[in-house]
Amino acid sequence: MIIALKMVSANYSQIGKRPDESKSETTIIMLPSDANPKGNVFGGVILKHLDLIAGLVAKRHAGHANIVTASIDRMTFLKPVYIGNALILSARLNYVKRSSMEVEVRIEAEDLDIGQRVLTGTAFVTVVALDEHRKPIEVIPLISNTDEDKKRFHEGESRMMTRLKGVGRAVT
Amino acid sequence: MIIALKMVSANYSQIGKRPDESKSETTIIMLPSDANPKGNVFGGVILKHLDLIAGLVAKRHAGHANIVTASIDRMTFLKPVYIGNALILSARLNYVKRSSMEVEVRIEAEDLDIGQRVLTGTAFVTVVALDEHRKPIEVIPLISNTDEDKKRFHEGESRMMTRLKGVGRAVT
Amino acid sequence: MIIALKMVSANYSQIGKRPDESKSETTIIMLPSDANPKGNVFGGVILKHLDLIAGLVAKRHAGHANIVTASIDRMTFLKPVYIGNALILSARLNYVKRSSMEVEVRIEAEDLDIGQRVLTGTAFVTVVALDEHRKPIEVIPLISNTDEDKKRFHEGESRMMTRLKGVGRAVT
Amino acid sequence: MIIALKMVSANYSQIGKRPDESKSETTIIMLPSDANPKGNVFGGVILKHLDLIAGLVAKRHAGHANIVTASIDRMTFLKPVYIGNALILSARLNYVKRSSMEVEVRIEAEDLDIGQRVLTGTAFVTVVALDEHRKPIEVIPLISNTDEDKKRFHEGESRMMTRLKGVGRAVT
Amino acid sequence: MIIALKMVSANYSQIGKRPDESKSETTIIMLPSDANPKGNVFGGVILKHLDLIAGLVAKRHAGHANIVTASIDRMTFLKPVYIGNALILSARLNYVKRSSMEVEVRIEAEDLDIGQRVLTGTAFVTVVALDEHRKPIEVIPLISNTDEDKKRFHEGESRMMTRLKGVGRAVT
Amino acid sequence: MIIALKMVSANYSQIGKRPDESKSETTIIMLPSDANPKGNVFGGVILKHLDLIAGLVAKRHAGHANIVTASIDRMTFLKPVYIGNALILSARLNYVKRSSMEVEVRIEAEDLDIGQRVLTGTAFVTVVALDEHRKPIEVIPLISNTDEDKKRFHEGESRMMTRLKGVGRAVT
Repeated sequence: MIIALKMVSANYSQIGKRPDESKSETTIIMLPSDANPKGNVFGGVILKHLDLIAGLVAKRHAGHANIVTASIDRMTFLKPVYIGNALILSARLNYVKRSSMEVEVRIEAEDLDIGQRVLTGTAFVTVVALDEHRKPIEVIPLISNTDEDKKRFHEGESRMMTRLKGVGRAVT
Repeated sequence: MIIALKMVSANYSQIGKRPDESKSETTIIMLPSDANPKGNVFGGVILKHLDLIAGLVAKRHAGHANIVTASIDRMTFLKPVYIGNALILSARLNYVKRSSMEVEVRIEAEDLDIGQRVLTGTAFVTVVALDEHRKPIEVIPLISNTDEDKKRFHEGESRMMTRLKGVGRAVT
Repeated sequence: MIIALKMVSANYSQIGKRPDESKSETTIIMLPSDANPKGNVFGGVILKHLDLIAGLVAKRHAGHANIVTASIDRMTFLKPVYIGNALILSARLNYVKRSSMEVEVRIEAEDLDIGQRVLTGTAFVTVVALDEHRKPIEVIPLISNTDEDKKRFHEGESRMMTRLKGVGRAVT
Repeated sequence: MIIALKMVSANYSQIGKRPDESKSETTIIMLPSDANPKGNVFGGVILKHLDLIAGLVAKRHAGHANIVTASIDRMTFLKPVYIGNALILSARLNYVKRSSMEVEVRIEAEDLDIGQRVLTGTAFVTVVALDEHRKPIEVIPLISNTDEDKKRFHEGESRMMTRLKGVGRAVT
Repeated sequence: MIIALKMVSANYSQIGKRPDESKSETTIIMLPSDANPKGNVFGGVILKHLDLIAGLVAKRHAGHANIVTASIDRMTFLKPVYIGNALILSARLNYVKRSSMEVEVRIEAEDLDIGQRVLTGTAFVTVVALDEHRKPIEVIPLISNTDEDKKRFHEGESRMMTRLKGVGRAVT
Repeated sequence: MIIALKMVSANYSQIGKRPDESKSETTIIMLPSDANPKGNVFGGVILKHLDLIAGLVAKRHAGHANIVTASIDRMTFLKPVYIGNALILSARLNYVKRSSMEVEVRIEAEDLDIGQRVLTGTAFVTVVALDEHRKPIEVIPLISNTDEDKKRFHEGESRMMTRLKGVGRAVT
């Protein structure tokens, strides 16, 4: 359907970027304005920050292109997050193919009273680069030099395949 | 692990509730304060409202219990939502088993200039009822009288089985 | 003063719309960020949502025109709304004359613990359709087919007459 | 219905307060986050600030009591307010009777580019003092020494009578 | 570096403005959404309002020019501010030189239960007027007629000298 | 004046923490809801995030104690921050003495289109640890092992002396 993809990059002489060039971390203290009626952080607050950081990582990789969230894989909230906790989101690119990017976000909550940090959830967000007419646009490749980066790339590719099949099912 | 589940309901003489007793709809006009830097609604805003309405439907069914979002199934953002659009979320219960409830949320965007409404996404949110000590607590059953409600109940049950297997995989 | 009114509609072949084509409902769970210092929902939060839904209903009727709130009739807050309650606003058009529309908004609060819903207030909001130069612009008529719709139309017309006299007094 | 009203004041030796002891002014620059989709300030933002300042004036008069907004008289939005304008709300007590207070709020918009200030609307807000059990509680009297204050007191008293009749009609 | 400064004013026949023509006061009730996890107002909320009112005063003096905050002098938070307090910011111009303006902001907290007002802090904010290309632009002079205004002008001038030396140190 | 200071720590067997045990970084994309009327990020938004991260770092060091911002040293906004930029705040402890902590926050803006990062400002925030009665409480020492950490400690100590003299002047 998409016949031609344009190529964009922050620096057009670049032939690609490594995952550590776009990875991001954000640490936000949870305030009463983030609370549900029972006084805990509600899931929607976490999801809002998750979407923002995934877009940030993708934008750091893709440069001039516009960035939209295409999908979020099934996400489980493993632990409650409390008001006064620090919410820590660490996000990095696993996989890039033409205009599609898989961002993995690790979400942790830190109890600042006792200095203890627990995993709250992990999310895989698929982000797409678009041009000014909302057409998909090719971004520079993801360079995987380390074994860890290569492993993540292959797993990301495999999840992307599964997703594409899933979308097929959804629209049938 | 959970040995005994307590039973709660708004009216303890009730033996259950139908899906249409808890279903909810919310229609919210998208404002500039909901925009990403390019002026469209960012995914995080939609996810925040999604989480709130799923919790609302579950709470309408479960009465006194506390409600927490346990997971959100993979969700695809099919269409962009623009500032000035109405965001319409319609949520209903498909399936209830002990303390777990599956809420289905249909998300639409309406272009108010031309009166056209498009499907933006569909989400399955798993919500759990907890008591004051954060222990799962049994809620009243979901009564499925119509063919449509029965079909949704069985599909929800099937998705819940898949999710439980997935969690198994995730923690291994 | 207004010599000519332009006619707009979502579908220019339409000769009017019924109230049920524009009516809207929104259901919002009240969060700690909506609270006054005593922990109840403050009136300003309710008024903000009231204004938003009245504008939404008018925009659904008027299509391309810009919509501004011209006035809100006297409104009484009959009952307090608490954090954790669902705030339910149901809005519909009663009356339309050239560029002016009367929207009636019924505001209810639902205690989700016990499933009880109480009327918090009723408001009549006058909304005006404007063109891009902020000049009033004629909208398509409101079609009242049912006895209920006709009764509301006549009552709305009567309130609009009273309002116009009131404005006269105010500017003298 | 209310058999006995308790008497509260910031300083129990005081026999009353003058309107200028509680009057308040707030000046707020309107930001893009206050905008409707067309980029103007939406009415709901103004109504939120109106409710907050009316409560503030009443609280300054009533001291320890809890303050709730009981009603807002019909209010007309005379002029649009634009992003970048200063919104100026000046609020004062006109009338006090037992637990009820009438606050008058004058709303102006100032175009900061040209230094021009226009009246946007005037509102009469009825605020009630409550004790910790949500029972009406008598507040100290309003002392009207000047001719202007006396005139406002009598007009406020007259509006309060009209309101009480109106409520009667509304509940019948 | 800046060779020529353009001259702007709301009314070009004006040769200057007195401090009382631009001074501003804002009174805002502190809500639970302004709280830190311990339930007090966090400093960032106060700083946000401080920056807004300083910009407002400068804009009232400078008319058409764009206004940016250049620096905030060391500021001490003398007393905690609690939810339910009124935060009162009173801001005025002390000194104006070409494109630079010194705004002094007095921050007080009022306990509305007992009617007691305490000084929370004082801040000196340096604001700069810019044209549409972000170049500094000369504003009309500040007219100091009273002894108080003249004293403040000289003190402001002296602080501005100290600041310019400090910036020199900072950039070396 | 403070006769005895209690000692708190996340882990009472600890004799101190290094700066890298409490340092924090946050990366936040600037949205239209953070804009001033001209569409740039207003200073107050930056100051709000500055205060939050300084408190977070101090809390990470101090564990159970309550944390309040005591003062912010003079801060210069070196460059404008635009909507769509990433705001990056990196905060670390320089100096700790009894209940007082100096946090240094480096504020940068990153243009995500071209991947360029500029320094926007540097701030020194003094934060104090308090017990539940709002009395200063001693925190564990800051352990400076590296030359860099030692240099920062001495510079922080020197600034703290200057501040204490400044406060003396302010209150005279």
